[in-house]
Amino acid sequence: MKKQYKKIVLAYSGGLDTSVLIPWLKENYGAEIIAVSGNVGQASELEGLEEKALKTGASKLYIEDLQEEFVNDYVIPTVKAGAAYEKYLLGTSFARPIIAKRIVEIAKKEGADAICHGCTGKGNDQVRFELAIKAFAPEMDIIAPWRFWELNSREKEIEYAEKHNIPLKINKETNYSKDKNLWHLSHEGLDLEDPANEAPIQKPGFLELGVSPYDAPDTPTKISLHFEKGIPVSLNGEEMKPLDIILKLNELGGANGIGLLDVVENRLVGMKSRGVYETPGGTILYAAHEKLEEITLDKETAHYKQQVALKFADLVYNGQWYTPLRKALSAFVDSTQETVTGDVTLKLYKGNIIPCSVTSPFSLYSSGMATFDEDDCYNQSDSEGFINLFGLPLKVRALNDKELFEKEGIHFPSVE
Amino acid sequence: MKKQYKKIVLAYSGGLDTSVLIPWLKENYGAEIIAVSGNVGQASELEGLEEKALKTGASKLYIEDLQEEFVNDYVIPTVKAGAAYEKYLLGTSFARPIIAKRIVEIAKKEGADAICHGCTGKGNDQVRFELAIKAFAPEMDIIAPWRFWELNSREKEIEYAEKHNIPLKINKETNYSKDKNLWHLSHEGLDLEDPANEAPIQKPGFLELGVSPYDAPDTPTKISLHFEKGIPVSLNGEEMKPLDIILKLNELGGANGIGLLDVVENRLVGMKSRGVYETPGGTILYAAHEKLEEITLDKETAHYKQQVALKFADLVYNGQWYTPLRKALSAFVDSTQETVTGDVTLKLYKGNIIPCSVTSPFSLYSSGMATFDEDDCYNQSDSEGFINLFGLPLKVRALNDKELFEKEGIHFPSVE
Amino acid sequence: MKKQYKKIVLAYSGGLDTSVLIPWLKENYGAEIIAVSGNVGQASELEGLEEKALKTGASKLYIEDLQEEFVNDYVIPTVKAGAAYEKYLLGTSFARPIIAKRIVEIAKKEGADAICHGCTGKGNDQVRFELAIKAFAPEMDIIAPWRFWELNSREKEIEYAEKHNIPLKINKETNYSKDKNLWHLSHEGLDLEDPANEAPIQKPGFLELGVSPYDAPDTPTKISLHFEKGIPVSLNGEEMKPLDIILKLNELGGANGIGLLDVVENRLVGMKSRGVYETPGGTILYAAHEKLEEITLDKETAHYKQQVALKFADLVYNGQWYTPLRKALSAFVDSTQETVTGDVTLKLYKGNIIPCSVTSPFSLYSSGMATFDEDDCYNQSDSEGFINLFGLPLKVRALNDKELFEKEGIHFPSVE
Amino acid sequence: MKKQYKKIVLAYSGGLDTSVLIPWLKENYGAEIIAVSGNVGQASELEGLEEKALKTGASKLYIEDLQEEFVNDYVIPTVKAGAAYEKYLLGTSFARPIIAKRIVEIAKKEGADAICHGCTGKGNDQVRFELAIKAFAPEMDIIAPWRFWELNSREKEIEYAEKHNIPLKINKETNYSKDKNLWHLSHEGLDLEDPANEAPIQKPGFLELGVSPYDAPDTPTKISLHFEKGIPVSLNGEEMKPLDIILKLNELGGANGIGLLDVVENRLVGMKSRGVYETPGGTILYAAHEKLEEITLDKETAHYKQQVALKFADLVYNGQWYTPLRKALSAFVDSTQETVTGDVTLKLYKGNIIPCSVTSPFSLYSSGMATFDEDDCYNQSDSEGFINLFGLPLKVRALNDKELFEKEGIHFPSVE
Repeated sequence: MKKQYKKIVLAYSGGLDTSVLIPWLKENYGAEIIAVSGNVGQASELEGLEEKALKTGASKLYIEDLQEEFVNDYVIPTVKAGAAYEKYLLGTSFARPIIAKRIVEIAKKEGADAICHGCTGKGNDQVRFELAIKAFAPEMDIIAPWRFWELNSREKEIEYAEKHNIPLKINKETNYSKDKNLWHLSHEGLDLEDPANEAPIQKPGFLELGVSPYDAPDTPTKISLHFEKGIPVSLNGEEMKPLDIILKLNELGGANGIGLLDVVENRLVGMKSRGVYETPGGTILYAAHEKLEEITLDKETAHYKQQVALKFADLVYNGQWYTPLRKALSAFVDSTQETVTGDVTLKLYKGNIIPCSVTSPFSLYSSGMATFDEDDCYNQSDSEGFINLFGLPLKVRALNDKELFEKEGIHFPSVE
Repeated sequence: MKKQYKKIVLAYSGGLDTSVLIPWLKENYGAEIIAVSGNVGQASELEGLEEKALKTGASKLYIEDLQEEFVNDYVIPTVKAGAAYEKYLLGTSFARPIIAKRIVEIAKKEGADAICHGCTGKGNDQVRFELAIKAFAPEMDIIAPWRFWELNSREKEIEYAEKHNIPLKINKETNYSKDKNLWHLSHEGLDLEDPANEAPIQKPGFLELGVSPYDAPDTPTKISLHFEKGIPVSLNGEEMKPLDIILKLNELGGANGIGLLDVVENRLVGMKSRGVYETPGGTILYAAHEKLEEITLDKETAHYKQQVALKFADLVYNGQWYTPLRKALSAFVDSTQETVTGDVTLKLYKGNIIPCSVTSPFSLYSSGMATFDEDDCYNQSDSEGFINLFGLPLKVRALNDKELFEKEGIHFPSVE
Repeated sequence: MKKQYKKIVLAYSGGLDTSVLIPWLKENYGAEIIAVSGNVGQASELEGLEEKALKTGASKLYIEDLQEEFVNDYVIPTVKAGAAYEKYLLGTSFARPIIAKRIVEIAKKEGADAICHGCTGKGNDQVRFELAIKAFAPEMDIIAPWRFWELNSREKEIEYAEKHNIPLKINKETNYSKDKNLWHLSHEGLDLEDPANEAPIQKPGFLELGVSPYDAPDTPTKISLHFEKGIPVSLNGEEMKPLDIILKLNELGGANGIGLLDVVENRLVGMKSRGVYETPGGTILYAAHEKLEEITLDKETAHYKQQVALKFADLVYNGQWYTPLRKALSAFVDSTQETVTGDVTLKLYKGNIIPCSVTSPFSLYSSGMATFDEDDCYNQSDSEGFINLFGLPLKVRALNDKELFEKEGIHFPSVE
Repeated sequence: MKKQYKKIVLAYSGGLDTSVLIPWLKENYGAEIIAVSGNVGQASELEGLEEKALKTGASKLYIEDLQEEFVNDYVIPTVKAGAAYEKYLLGTSFARPIIAKRIVEIAKKEGADAICHGCTGKGNDQVRFELAIKAFAPEMDIIAPWRFWELNSREKEIEYAEKHNIPLKINKETNYSKDKNLWHLSHEGLDLEDPANEAPIQKPGFLELGVSPYDAPDTPTKISLHFEKGIPVSLNGEEMKPLDIILKLNELGGANGIGLLDVVENRLVGMKSRGVYETPGGTILYAAHEKLEEITLDKETAHYKQQVALKFADLVYNGQWYTPLRKALSAFVDSTQETVTGDVTLKLYKGNIIPCSVTSPFSLYSSGMATFDEDDCYNQSDSEGFINLFGLPLKVRALNDKELFEKEGIHFPSVE
């Protein structure tokens, strides 16, 4: 017999998996179930949730509005880092830690003795959830039924649900596995599982946050963004919270076919998987931010930051948000953002983000060679000395080679 | 008085700068001038070149067809590396070393005592030329008149040309500074010098290798590429040399608005500059190659290769092709490419490259979780152990924190 | 009841753990046991091994002499890479893959249906063994009793051994956990488990490969090594195989107190552990090789190689020898070693390795600034140009700051 | 005729070079000369300096005590980073920026129109000085006579000095080029210029901060250090300022033969040079700090920090202290140091630093596997799952290989 619990907090979405979990947990652990839904912008999925949770046996449902915190403390730091994991803009990855953290807070408040999540045992999300739980409640028991229970197929879950009178509105066959929040929507499964199959991006109902480039309008939409220290603070001249900027950019980007990604990615748990992602607003935000960095970061900072971004992305993808390294990388990133202030104008057109204009008071371009006259800043004859020293190792090697050959008949190994 | 030379080999393009250089060098150094043009696909620019060179005073013109060698030994190794410098696909960068190498060979054959190039003292190309010369002829004198001569403006050059009866067909005002080869075409100067100005990509005559996304056709073009060990070997089912594949992709990509880049980049010589690049075929090649790597490289190799690509790009951009480090990085890259064999199908549509299908006999995806049944390869319960150890440092830290607080009232610094 | 096997190949050392495993495996799996010992230089431990294995119930013992292969294909590539994991010279790490590979070969030849190892479930070696097995025999069953059996303490093992008449020559209390091969000897456990305790390096019998610096002689020993392409090929003027060089260096180094390391390291499986390592010959080899690289590698190659070394070390430590990334990094390293040919003289003195002399035909030092006269190679006035361009970004930023302040009263964020 | 100046601020040491510079500058530029000496611990060199400066024609001498600021704002941040450039502990490198910054401040206060330094045109120091000047006074003229003057040899300088009645106390033949401050002393030149020559570390008068390992006492000296957030705050139980800790460690380390480095290094200006460095206290400080990090940093942070340290060292060595990247890297480093608090005990013995003990309230070791019982923190069976997923890519590849071979007769390229 399984260990028994008094009170289990369940990460609850109202979908099939977590709906079935409520009666299953009660049956198996004899526990009171507290359901928690973190609102990170999944929108319509939250409607009617409380009724549903209670009906299936939960004693309480928390719906936590995490949207602002999600954007300000998770999304924006990642945008500032310019972090992408194998091109993927991390939509699911950084949503898990904030939800898990809130669940831990509620579990502690409720005096729960275990936390349960409905993530599959083949995915990244189980890692992200559990790492966050370990960080804040290292002694808390974690229940991950998908890794061991008997309901290990959609069919068995549905059967169980029907037996337990759990109301389902499920289209039994055609559902991709999706994850939606204010930043993105992901699609996995079914025909996408073979990377030889083209993603059905024009099929009605497939895309939810916008249209494909094929179906976008024939005229471009021009937008402008203002950033302060790497943070977007106004859109088209209107001051807005980052959350609202993202929501608006989703609309504009979605309408113009922006932000589709079709990729075979490397999961943390050792396998490859194929996903199609919609990140309309996020893709625009990354592009605009990058454009502004082009003129405000010096080369050495910009190049080093490219490497930091790779590591940052790994950490976010791997659920290592609450680690000393992620925190230290954020300290690095924040330092680089001190001059990332300015305006970017872009055109959105059928999947393209076309730069129009970028300006900044801290521009290292505009105030550079153009503004200052030649004598002050750049003397062409300097480049001779520069090249001579920059090329010195090559020249020494080549001179040495000549000498070696003449004296001893041996050549330096070629560099061609 | 300047040091005198017997014979100077001049890197010759037939444009204003190098046309003026022939008489100027003769006047100033009393030397015989051997002009050399390296054909890396700049096409029409090569017509009538010999006549022009001889007329302006050169005693000989070499036109060297470097196209195949350029593609096979410079372009393709860079594609395999996936190297991009601040998104720029390095079109000018890797053309310079091969031209300079051939010039050195000719200079040695001709018994020349100096090499002259017409690169500006503010640019990268002077570095690329001179580093290659130093690598192969470390004792050769290099003449770089732009860094010191009196003809330091377009107007003075034209005046000088007219005085010396050099035929010019120049539109005096509207010329962007361009560099063209079989891989790309770059645009710099004039209104582009202010990044607040939108690039005139729809203006007739501006783009040369294709059209803008706005002007591309409304129906997509589907293409397929086959790679062997990272090298493209057939297009749409037809075996072709990489050179011909690139030329054909330029056509197809250009027609569909593919491969435009508008960027403020960091030059090696310490300043930022703004360029607009057309790389239609190259952009497709990078995308297809990357797509194939998604399924054929394992995660650790792929991630490390991202970092190698950054360094590789720096070296190419900086003219350090003929260095031990570039050679060693190529050895790394070649090793990773042993399984990068397979087929990629893409759709080109108004600036978008939309993946359709990717397959490989060495796919680490298709033969993975899908093909092998669960017991053989993936046991969901394994992930519990994985997460427990992966998350162990976090848990130890958190447990320690709790203990510290209880015993001594101090907290670990937060990781939030 | 456990799954039954016909034939199990056991990685056998003759120590307590693997001695007990033979009867235990027979009892539990009903299998014939083939014991395999890979000789990687653990020396005296191999004496009387066959008799012991057969007496305890094995039907056969293979003793495989892997010494040469170990040195040439595992140790030397790692020396060339200069790879150290948190200062640790990887002695155990690269011994595991070669042993596991041979075990797989024997298992296949013998038609075995499982491989068993006696590694603890808290350590790195289980990972190293199993990754190598997976690489060569992905479908082979692996038995790792320490992760689940009932004999989970030294006491229970001894009791079991006594019950089964397994001859033991064990000092019941004072044994550190040791691993010995031709490259090193490691010590873990007992009082070392608290990093607040000083390692008893002067206690008789603790160190086995040499003495502590305190106990080393008062006069230095001078040695010279010759390398060809990064590989040591002669010692003190005498041509020797790398294996013999290492053995001799162990003697000389050990006698002079060289190569002790006392470190708290991060295991792959998520915990920290403390070890004391003796690597006398290896430490000298690393120092000599590094010294030679100082004069034969150019700066950019040397610096990049420092980063590659970090990754290489991770892979070796983690048991990822047989991976595409390790292979690709070795291709990089081998390319860099083409000029690492020359002579190094060192003095060994009471724990110190003091460089005396280094020379190479490919030296980028000796043939450099000293040999060539100033005009040919280095013109001091070049450095002005160099500095002006190298410092240009700083100057532009500072000029810009001044301008910003005068115009708009704002300062660039300080860089102090 | 040279451009004339009203007032030149001269970086002044009182050595031959800068003594000669005073009259030379007056002669050549007609300027008033303000001499500035930054005291960074070069000690005796500062005695009698004012008299000397005025006698040779300076109108004023500033002696600026920069010791505390040097240690707190330059040395300690570098220790925290663990930054070493090709093993070199950067003693000269980080002294230049602070001196240059103070010189700029004085030049501004004095209304000077140029700054002069006496660095050679072949070295790193010219770059370090000038980059700092550009950062704080981008429009200030810089005079670097060594790059162009006629006194381009020791002999000519001495002759000039004698002609101008500059008092010299110079041993004309045997002087190595030295740089001394509170952190280190460097030796270059003479017989050291050939790396085939052993450094004369036992020759009386060569070493100044201590003795060689050969000459150190036969009994070890035990010391203990306490760090708070990576900063050393007490030595042997006594609270001390970091400056005083370094001074005391110099004494103790020097006496025990600690901190000698003999290295051929890669200068920024493209050449290799050979130096012998004495850094007794610094070497101890690095070792102790590193020891403490072993138990207080988690693996991922520690490993990433190794890479950051390499870049940090490059920046310091290259004189890029006052850059956004150095500042951002310091932000990273500071974040990692939040738990680097604790005690380290070491023995100093004839060149060896032998760790005795390390403890920390934030230890991730001591509170880890040892303290918590097995169930709470580490379940050996977890490692099976861990290994299965960690090794999954290898296994998939191998299974795939088998399948490929059976079906199509082709093998995956080997990873051996």
